[in-house]
Amino acid sequence: MINVGVLGFGTVGSGVVEVIETNGKKIGKRIGEPLNVKYILDYKDFKGTPVENKIVHEFKTILEDPEIQIVVEVLGGIEPAYTYVKKSLLAGKSVVTSNKALVAAHGAELLSIAKDNNINFLFEASVGGGIPIIRALNTSLTADEIEEIDGILNGTTNYMLTKMEEDNAEYEDVLKEAQEKGYAERNPEADVMGYDACRKIAILSSLISGHQVDFEDIYCEGITEITKTDIDYAKKLGYKIKLVAVSKRHFGNHLHAIVAPFMVGKENPIFHVDGVMNAVVVRGNMLGDAMFYGAGAGKLPTASAVVGDIVDEAKNLHNNVMPMWKEETLILDDYASMRRKFFVRVKGTWEAMSKDLKDYFGKDIEPVFLDGRDDEFGFITPIIMEGDYETRSKVFKDVILNRIRVEFYD
Amino acid sequence: MINVGVLGFGTVGSGVVEVIETNGKKIGKRIGEPLNVKYILDYKDFKGTPVENKIVHEFKTILEDPEIQIVVEVLGGIEPAYTYVKKSLLAGKSVVTSNKALVAAHGAELLSIAKDNNINFLFEASVGGGIPIIRALNTSLTADEIEEIDGILNGTTNYMLTKMEEDNAEYEDVLKEAQEKGYAERNPEADVMGYDACRKIAILSSLISGHQVDFEDIYCEGITEITKTDIDYAKKLGYKIKLVAVSKRHFGNHLHAIVAPFMVGKENPIFHVDGVMNAVVVRGNMLGDAMFYGAGAGKLPTASAVVGDIVDEAKNLHNNVMPMWKEETLILDDYASMRRKFFVRVKGTWEAMSKDLKDYFGKDIEPVFLDGRDDEFGFITPIIMEGDYETRSKVFKDVILNRIRVEFYD
Repeated sequence: MINVGVLGFGTVGSGVVEVIETNGKKIGKRIGEPLNVKYILDYKDFKGTPVENKIVHEFKTILEDPEIQIVVEVLGGIEPAYTYVKKSLLAGKSVVTSNKALVAAHGAELLSIAKDNNINFLFEASVGGGIPIIRALNTSLTADEIEEIDGILNGTTNYMLTKMEEDNAEYEDVLKEAQEKGYAERNPEADVMGYDACRKIAILSSLISGHQVDFEDIYCEGITEITKTDIDYAKKLGYKIKLVAVSKRHFGNHLHAIVAPFMVGKENPIFHVDGVMNAVVVRGNMLGDAMFYGAGAGKLPTASAVVGDIVDEAKNLHNNVMPMWKEETLILDDYASMRRKFFVRVKGTWEAMSKDLKDYFGKDIEPVFLDGRDDEFGFITPIIMEGDYETRSKVFKDVILNRIRVEFYD
Repeated sequence: MINVGVLGFGTVGSGVVEVIETNGKKIGKRIGEPLNVKYILDYKDFKGTPVENKIVHEFKTILEDPEIQIVVEVLGGIEPAYTYVKKSLLAGKSVVTSNKALVAAHGAELLSIAKDNNINFLFEASVGGGIPIIRALNTSLTADEIEEIDGILNGTTNYMLTKMEEDNAEYEDVLKEAQEKGYAERNPEADVMGYDACRKIAILSSLISGHQVDFEDIYCEGITEITKTDIDYAKKLGYKIKLVAVSKRHFGNHLHAIVAPFMVGKENPIFHVDGVMNAVVVRGNMLGDAMFYGAGAGKLPTASAVVGDIVDEAKNLHNNVMPMWKEETLILDDYASMRRKFFVRVKGTWEAMSKDLKDYFGKDIEPVFLDGRDDEFGFITPIIMEGDYETRSKVFKDVILNRIRVEFYD
């Protein structure tokens, strides 16, 4: 029998127990022996519920029980998760986590401890919920040099942008609706500012580069500045606006990474990823593009990924299967050197402005107009460096209403 | 050093050598030791090419060399592939294949020999080319009961249907174009009759049921009867016509399986899978829907999947990692008991026919008309059993022009 201790009985923790209860027989067959949740650490008692006699209030009970081979950390946040996970690994217990903050901050160290102890530290659920992207990168796409990852990694913002587009609604209104439906937190900052997606692309960047990538180093822009009018321009141009997390390799092991709203065309498979769904496009130098699509969050999809990791660990109790990444931080390339097109919205008339704009952005730019709006227009720049866009746009800072990157990742 | 023998230097075989040459350094790092193609079995000599000194003409050379740990079978077809693969496994050499015919026909036996010898028989490339669906089913989605798999598993037919839709073209014209572009064989039967997709869904069905599923038992209908007019109706109804392979579990381990053209709505993620791309939607009882999307064929994507399997085998030289399926054949449920809607095209006028059609197909059916066609109309049935549709449609056999299943899998 494989005995597991679950740290935290919140949404994901109760999902993990539900998955093991529902599919336990099949899971036991896959492992080769039964899987048993022996303890659940929570400060509440859950009196009168079926888990009542599994609840413990002291982490020590789990840590010191030699029968516990796998610890499942679903507390979220850095502390006490980090302390508990580290102690578990040092005690020779494999760990599964769904905690992106923990993995983004301490992944390298925890993977290294797991390796030293010939056990495993797995975290499939920390990126893309139910989408099995991490194991695919580690075990399926091993013949390829991964050149680029583009992901819709946050369901809340994707739901909001889809709603704005479909209902022709303003940001504030869809945020309110998303909060009412429970898709967005009361304090929505982590989602709408892009921080959540940023931690996830940092984890994927660490995996493909083999080095710690700090999420604080990734240029990150949320969706708070996106308006109904921007979406109207995008529609007119045949684009959708998506919050995309990009990690792109160039010149060997140099990485560009960015999280920002992008205008995405319908040739790109993520154009069709709407609502709360997530997707990750992986470009391999041999494989070409492959996309992984599914529920990026939610109790059961996330729990399914956690339990999938438990099965993997149970089958590899003393066999380290996860590649490490080095603790030395990879210095990302300056985002100012990334090249792409920008969609720019300008106050005024094309007639009055075109000569000056062409002087700075090239003679081939063409105006885009919205029906019934004669007080502004838009245009798309040629491919230029982010830094160049910044310096040039400063010249027009009094008349530029907004700018959105157009898919061309470099 | 891991030494590999490659059987066959055709498209996939030369791709395998190219992948190992291009990414060899990285691949060697992942394995922990260098990967070397020692022999290539082919009847040609390839004189003057870089592989000249690796070419052998006798399988015995590979079989009897104790340095060869992994045999890569990319010959295609049943013989001599089956004999070579079986002998290799019995000699304690792990085998990788891209050969769907071989796996569909002899998978159970070959997996069992591999298990007995504590080696591996892997075949990721046999389904969906570069899409890592087999390893996902075996190692990531292990917490789930897989309830359904719906796949676009054949790029040729998907290309043809996309072309018919986009260019408003007839079947014969797009087939000719696909043949000219090299997407379709001169004898296109295996693709257009659905046989290729059928072998692939048989393999996936075996994986999720744990039993041999014979492709001959799967109801299989190709795209040869699909016309421009059918596509016009589909467009009018907001559908696309896709050749979909379905395997659906119900009542425990009973499986329904079918390959046929379906009308697919835009809420279904495979609606957006166009051209030569493939996709597999997997529905887990906990995970919900996840989709895997990518190049279903092509030299390098297929070779990438083959080399990914080589890496897995090299890391698990004496550790069997692949679940088996039993050799006893799973009896599929009679396709006549599957339930779904049908789109039906009828010669004549709605006025003259509606009373009789409503008598047999229910009072709620409504006509669909195409602009400029007053000699025919269409309608969609309620959800009925395949068998019931057949008996009822016989009544109208003189006036029914075509019928296409509408997505509702049961």
